[in-house]
Order: sequence, then structure tokens, then C-alpha cells
Amino acid sequence: MILINGAATDSVPATDRGLAYGDGVFRTILVQGARARRWRHHYRKLASDCSALAIPCPAETLLAEELAATAREHGDCVVKIIITRGSGRRGYAPPHSPAVTRIVIAGPRPDYPRDFEDSGVKMHLCATRLASQPRLAGIKHLNRLENVLARSEWHDDSVPEGLMLDQDGNAVSGTMTNLFVVDRGGLTTPDLSRCGVAGLTRERVMDAATTRGVACRVERIPLARLLEADEVFLVNSVIGVWPVKECFGRTWEPGPSAARVRKWLDEAGD
Amino acid sequence: MILINGAATDSVPATDRGLAYGDGVFRTILVQGARARRWRHHYRKLASDCSALAIPCPAETLLAEELAATAREHGDCVVKIIITRGSGRRGYAPPHSPAVTRIVIAGPRPDYPRDFEDSGVKMHLCATRLASQPRLAGIKHLNRLENVLARSEWHDDSVPEGLMLDQDGNAVSGTMTNLFVVDRGGLTTPDLSRCGVAGLTRERVMDAATTRGVACRVERIPLARLLEADEVFLVNSVIGVWPVKECFGRTWEPGPSAARVRKWLDEAGD
Repeated sequence: MILINGAATDSVPATDRGLAYGDGVFRTILVQGARARRWRHHYRKLASDCSALAIPCPAETLLAEELAATAREHGDCVVKIIITRGSGRRGYAPPHSPAVTRIVIAGPRPDYPRDFEDSGVKMHLCATRLASQPRLAGIKHLNRLENVLARSEWHDDSVPEGLMLDQDGNAVSGTMTNLFVVDRGGLTTPDLSRCGVAGLTRERVMDAATTRGVACRVERIPLARLLEADEVFLVNSVIGVWPVKECFGRTWEPGPSAARVRKWLDEAGD
Repeated sequence: MILINGAATDSVPATDRGLAYGDGVFRTILVQGARARRWRHHYRKLASDCSALAIPCPAETLLAEELAATAREHGDCVVKIIITRGSGRRGYAPPHSPAVTRIVIAGPRPDYPRDFEDSGVKMHLCATRLASQPRLAGIKHLNRLENVLARSEWHDDSVPEGLMLDQDGNAVSGTMTNLFVVDRGGLTTPDLSRCGVAGLTRERVMDAATTRGVACRVERIPLARLLEADEVFLVNSVIGVWPVKECFGRTWEPGPSAARVRKWLDEAGD
């Protein structure tokens, strides 16, 4: 089911700036047992991303209601919320008082093999690299052609994710996941001040580590360092935590960290 | 009037990848006297941009018919054609056989003061800089948040354009125009191998120069060089040629080059 500005319809105006320019932001939210997992946290991120682009963010209660309405007929599912700057006069100049578009789409939860969580995943090394754009780094905006190009590089369904590097060869993220490496006796996640999406689960892992007195560094991680790490794992709100078992010829045996981090996230609740 | 896949409607599916990811390309075409100006050239660019993203480009005759149909009720107007990779399964992976979406939108020609052409324009120096992304450079794709952010930096309607630099401080383009400088006895346009849109009129100016035995260099142009140039002018398919009369404190008197280049373009016809 799809709600657009609260109305059950499946289409948006062709003049919407989300389509014309990718002028908007989005979130992907897991719904389990009729509850939107980590809703508060998701909404905070959405509001923060809207603010970074000067798009007025719709009220939390309104979006929560629309999310619940779209999810109702699905049971456990994934709901995508897109907020765009709406339609407006022709050209790049944003309208002074934008009438934002709210798009809420419920769909089935992707059906990944249980094995990805338990034994880990193979990760393609993407040739498509992320551009350095400090002004947009971290934001989950609608300009995602780099991710599309990266994800189009391989067709083997048994490989669910690809590693994206920045232009200098540092590991930044998966195409749809954030990344952690375990080495030097600690946890490190890539610095996202120049590119990448600062995902909600990445933040939750960092918070959980801090709560437990475990150091979690934020650094540039050259590919060579990632390939030498004791463990590598991927996170997002839908998949949870996937250990990486293979990337660019390097293989890893299952280590303790992914499972431990998964337990942290479960304990943190909503 | 709007045609979407040939049907008169004003909306697109909310699941379209053009909206979700900016996964598509576009062109803006001037229609005068019921003729789409430089249609052949526009279509060639559209096909080339589609090809760069592995999006199948609709047939030329089909798009030409739809363009004519939307323009018919407008007289002189501007038609925007958007081609997206259509809808598909969830996630970044492009569908194997995409059913592309064709969006053809006719609208009024922007009403710029005649003075912009004759006396030149003031150009804002944008703080938003273009990221270096060789894989997407040159393509007129739908990921245009940088242009939106740059264009939102000023609100003075008497300033119609802003200068965008790359991360190293080289002049790349306007937010909606390509750029030429006249100095060292010749014409130079910025190298667009790392960012920017390689517009049709830029190419036509380069071709016209070559035809006339006039050198037109393609180089990186540091801001300092632009500010010291004898003349600077901006081009695109809708505005034609605008001399720049002011940027970042530097002012220019009208020089002979913009008018000469405008004459070249007129002589070249379609």
C-alpha cells in the first residue's frame, strides 16, 4: 500500500522535485509485530536530513500514522518514507515555501537467507567509487546513482553486498549498509564526513559500544587495512548485522564480534 | 501538457527509480515556431547519456512525436524530456530488462530580461562546490542536489546564475549553464571529465569554433584565471548566450565574443 500526502494512490506529480532533481530524503523502516522498529530514532534522522537540505519535515505523529496505515495490511514488512521538496516553479531554485511531498510505501521484507547472518556474506569490491561531497555526506538523500552503478556491477544473487571506496581508496560502506572493522583490539567505522550515508544502525552500534565502555573509532580505513582486519561486518535497519566472510580474495572465519554487536542491538530495544 | 509513456497524465508511479534514486537522465529543449530546436543533437545527447547509465533509450521518432504533441498547445515553449529506468524490484540493483519511463513536459519559455543577452548578467559565486565523480561527469542525469543547493544560495532575481567551482577551486559551470572564458587570445571552456554537465550548446560552440579555425581549448580554469579573463560568457539551449558582467567583485564591459558566438550559433541553424 502507498500513501501520498495521506491519500491512497500510487503516483506522484511528474513535476515533483524528488523526480526532477532527487531533491528529497528517505528512510527504510522495519515493521515487526505491527511496530515500526526504532521509529523515534528514524524520525530524528529524517528530521535531521530534511533540515540539512532546508526541507520542512512533516510532523512525527502524521508520519507515524501514515506508516501504521500502510503497514497494517502487510504484517511484518518494510516501510519506505520519502520526503521531497514537492513541486514548484521550473528550475533549480527551491520554492520559498515548499509544499513537501510525503510518500509512504509498505512492501514485503526482503527474504535474505538465514545463512547471511550466521555464516557471513561475500562482498563484491565495487569499481564505482564515491565522490567526496562534504555538503551532502551522511545525508540519506535521493541522489543515489553512485549506489545504483555500484550495485549493477555484479549479478550473483549469492553476493548480497558490495564494498564502496572513496576516490582515495578508503573503504566507506556497502551499497546499502554501513561498515565496521575489528582490528587493533577495537571497533572502527569509516569516517563519513566526505561521502556515504550515516545510517541509524551504525549510530546505534556506536552508542551501544560507548555505553559498554568499548572504544569505537571513526577513521578513514584504507582498503588494505580492511583486508587485514580480524573481522568485518555490515549493518543496516533491515538486515541487522552481517559478518563478511569474503572480499577481494580475503576470507574470514566467523568471529565473535558480529554476534556480540547483534546482541547489543537486541538489548538496546527501541 | 504532460505525456507519460505516451498517455496524457500528470503523474508517475511512486515506485519509479527516477524518484527513488535519481536513476535517469533529462533534456530541456526549446520549441520555436512549432519546431524543436536542435532536436537531432538533443536526441543524440539523450541517447548517449542513457547509454552511459545502461538505460535503453526510447526511439527518436517516438520521442519526437510526443514532444510535438505536448508542445502543440503551447506555441513557443520549453519541453523537458525525462527518461528513467522505470520501476523495478526493491533495492539499488537495476532490473535486467527495465521498462523505462518517458516523461515529456511542455511549459512556458522562461521570461528573462532582454538585457541579460545585451548587457550581460551578474553571476553569484556559489559556496556549494561540485564533487569529483568521473563516472557521472558530463551526463545530464537526475542527481542534481548540488545544483539545487548552489541555486538556493541567493534570492536576488536580478542575478540569474551562479558560478560553481570544483573541490579544488576550478570554475566548472553555472548551475544551469556552461561556461566559456576569453583570454590569451582564445576561447576556453572548463574540462568536464570530473564534474559538470557537458551541455549541447557548449558542444555547438566548440564545433562552430573549430569550423572557423578558431582554437577552443578545454582546460581546468582556476577561479583566479576566470576573474582575470577578458570576457566570460554562459550558454545553454534555452538562454542562448549571456555575457557575464559581474562576478565576485570583478566587472566586465560588454566585449565582442558573446555576440560573435551567438552569431555562430544562429548560422549553424539546426
